[in-house]
Amino acid sequence: MADTLADTLVAMQTAPLSTTDLPVTQQVRIELAERSYDILIGSQLLGRPETYAGLPKASTALIVSNTTVAPLYAAQLQAALQTHYGKVLLVSLPDGEVYKDWPTLQLIFDALLENSCDRKTVLFALGGGVVGDMTGFAAASYMRGVPFVQIPTTLLAQVDSSVGGKTAINHPLGKNMIGAFYQPQRVICDLDVLATLPPRELSAGLAEIIKYGPIADMDFLDWIEAHIDDLRAGDPTALAHAVKRSCEIKAFVVGQDEREAGLRAILNFGHTFGHAIESGMGYGAWLHGEGVGCGMVMAAELSQRLGLIDVALVARLRRLVERAGLPTVGPTLDAADNAGRYMALMQVDKKAEAGAIKFVVIDRPGSAAVRGAPEALVRAVIDACCAPV
Amino acid sequence: MADTLADTLVAMQTAPLSTTDLPVTQQVRIELAERSYDILIGSQLLGRPETYAGLPKASTALIVSNTTVAPLYAAQLQAALQTHYGKVLLVSLPDGEVYKDWPTLQLIFDALLENSCDRKTVLFALGGGVVGDMTGFAAASYMRGVPFVQIPTTLLAQVDSSVGGKTAINHPLGKNMIGAFYQPQRVICDLDVLATLPPRELSAGLAEIIKYGPIADMDFLDWIEAHIDDLRAGDPTALAHAVKRSCEIKAFVVGQDEREAGLRAILNFGHTFGHAIESGMGYGAWLHGEGVGCGMVMAAELSQRLGLIDVALVARLRRLVERAGLPTVGPTLDAADNAGRYMALMQVDKKAEAGAIKFVVIDRPGSAAVRGAPEALVRAVIDACCAPV
Repeated sequence: MADTLADTLVAMQTAPLSTTDLPVTQQVRIELAERSYDILIGSQLLGRPETYAGLPKASTALIVSNTTVAPLYAAQLQAALQTHYGKVLLVSLPDGEVYKDWPTLQLIFDALLENSCDRKTVLFALGGGVVGDMTGFAAASYMRGVPFVQIPTTLLAQVDSSVGGKTAINHPLGKNMIGAFYQPQRVICDLDVLATLPPRELSAGLAEIIKYGPIADMDFLDWIEAHIDDLRAGDPTALAHAVKRSCEIKAFVVGQDEREAGLRAILNFGHTFGHAIESGMGYGAWLHGEGVGCGMVMAAELSQRLGLIDVALVARLRRLVERAGLPTVGPTLDAADNAGRYMALMQVDKKAEAGAIKFVVIDRPGSAAVRGAPEALVRAVIDACCAPV
Repeated sequence: MADTLADTLVAMQTAPLSTTDLPVTQQVRIELAERSYDILIGSQLLGRPETYAGLPKASTALIVSNTTVAPLYAAQLQAALQTHYGKVLLVSLPDGEVYKDWPTLQLIFDALLENSCDRKTVLFALGGGVVGDMTGFAAASYMRGVPFVQIPTTLLAQVDSSVGGKTAINHPLGKNMIGAFYQPQRVICDLDVLATLPPRELSAGLAEIIKYGPIADMDFLDWIEAHIDDLRAGDPTALAHAVKRSCEIKAFVVGQDEREAGLRAILNFGHTFGHAIESGMGYGAWLHGEGVGCGMVMAAELSQRLGLIDVALVARLRRLVERAGLPTVGPTLDAADNAGRYMALMQVDKKAEAGAIKFVVIDRPGSAAVRGAPEALVRAVIDACCAPV
């Protein structure tokens, strides 16, 4: 499986540009039979009516955004959509992971029903991962399914969460526990919007980009190491390549395994530890990408202690995560029994089976696998990777 | 379309019994490629371990029921499931359409997460339409989808709501507005449980049985007329045939159009008016089947005024609905502008497009179609069919 994935990814060519008049620099297709769709990657996309040509027809569109992003970009999106839809509505959610919950989701349903939106209404998610996940789940559930479009405005959402159809809200007892696999009609990655992204959010996005290296493409890891400073500085050419390559790898994996029966789980590298950190600290204290960054270091450490990779790769990954501006030392979640607290939080991970925690490990450079691990070993990793009390 | 449907239904033969040792009298298959499943119809099914053979393996099963049904049947179901699952949990919801909402759905998620249920956990819906719709939506959404089984305990759920994968909860502004198309692994219709059904609930179920006549099978309508008193008296042979024939028709329609792109909408005959009544009266005041019974009379009246059927068929249907113990006169929802209130409530119907209400009409005996109607005509139907203030 691993060889096939790596070989196929190397051999993959970006699809040729379509003959539209869009200033699209890249186009990546997700192949899922009748649910296939394109990711458009380029500049000046968001405000151009042509970007939205060919989407499902409807009398009404609803933009879902948040109080941070809407003031920046909702007006130009609204103007562009007015070419295609008779009525373009906007609902602005409070900003933050802590609002990825049912009461906030309800605001979307309220807006849809108060405006008599029918089952053809198209939803547009304008924001980061939280807005995308919530809009997607609202689209999956409203009248049992209406079409939606992802317009990710954070680096993390552009390279990961907006692609592949995972939608969800959090439950007090676990992250992303309530949701649906529901594919968007299109993903629009406008690189220009990254210019307004706070540095901390940019770093969080780099975590998900770095992820693709050790699990699928060591050449890409080399490239990221060579360009990490350009990426942090917001260099458009570097960002364009990072977004495109990340989307290509994710598109391939999702195309093989839409509903995470197997392969797709490797995309969760760093997420088992990362979710525990996010949940244990209280949603929003650490950004998702920060949890993943630190979680990747812990997962690499686990891989090394399982005898799968050498210490040099762990050190290399730790150094890169650090250079990306991300934490590499886990927080202490419980002064009395820190490892126990991590274990308890990881037991509600969606990959767990009958209480046994499953980890995504690097089984050799550029290849990942999902497996269990002896509890004593996992506890030792947590002890080694977390700050002393 | 209509001729094909009627002809096909007449030609359809019930699938031969499988060579299991189950006391299954009937078996109807829903053909949906990899989502295909069987409806088992018979007696002594619920408490027999063999009924649950061949379902997905898991360490844990969760029975979702309500405070009315659980005391009657949960213990024997639990005992039967213990043969197959290491842990069999039970969550009992408050009973009634008024609880088909998010806070009650949350009780299911709470039970799943508090018991560390993983993504293989199988949910069993033990109850009527509300329990089935809520359990199905919980199964569709928990960890983005876990398997579930329908064990309908009302006549209405056995002949309609448990079959076909429509799941949902209500929103204060509209019925079944938030949900998913999500198919069960199996539907188990144990006819014995109908013996404990209150007469009013039995009548409500008859509404959905009667429905299949005018829209798909006039021979079945003849049969229902001849056996309506047996059905109301709970005669097992009559009920067995009514459940089987209803499931056959529904299975065929759902197999043609799982996600209601077209044909499936005919199963909503009587539901546009019926939902307005249910919603306008406040959920729970009228049973769903009562709304549908009265709604069918109104939809037939509309069909007649559109020149599609003659007055004799309307009268025949009204008489049968009445003999089934169901209301045939609509309630006054607004003394000042009753028709206006109905129109406003029908505008949030899921079949509506751009504010235009769509009705399921009988276009000739045994055949239905979905179409709009002039507002003045619809208002006249409402005026003619509702009780004077």
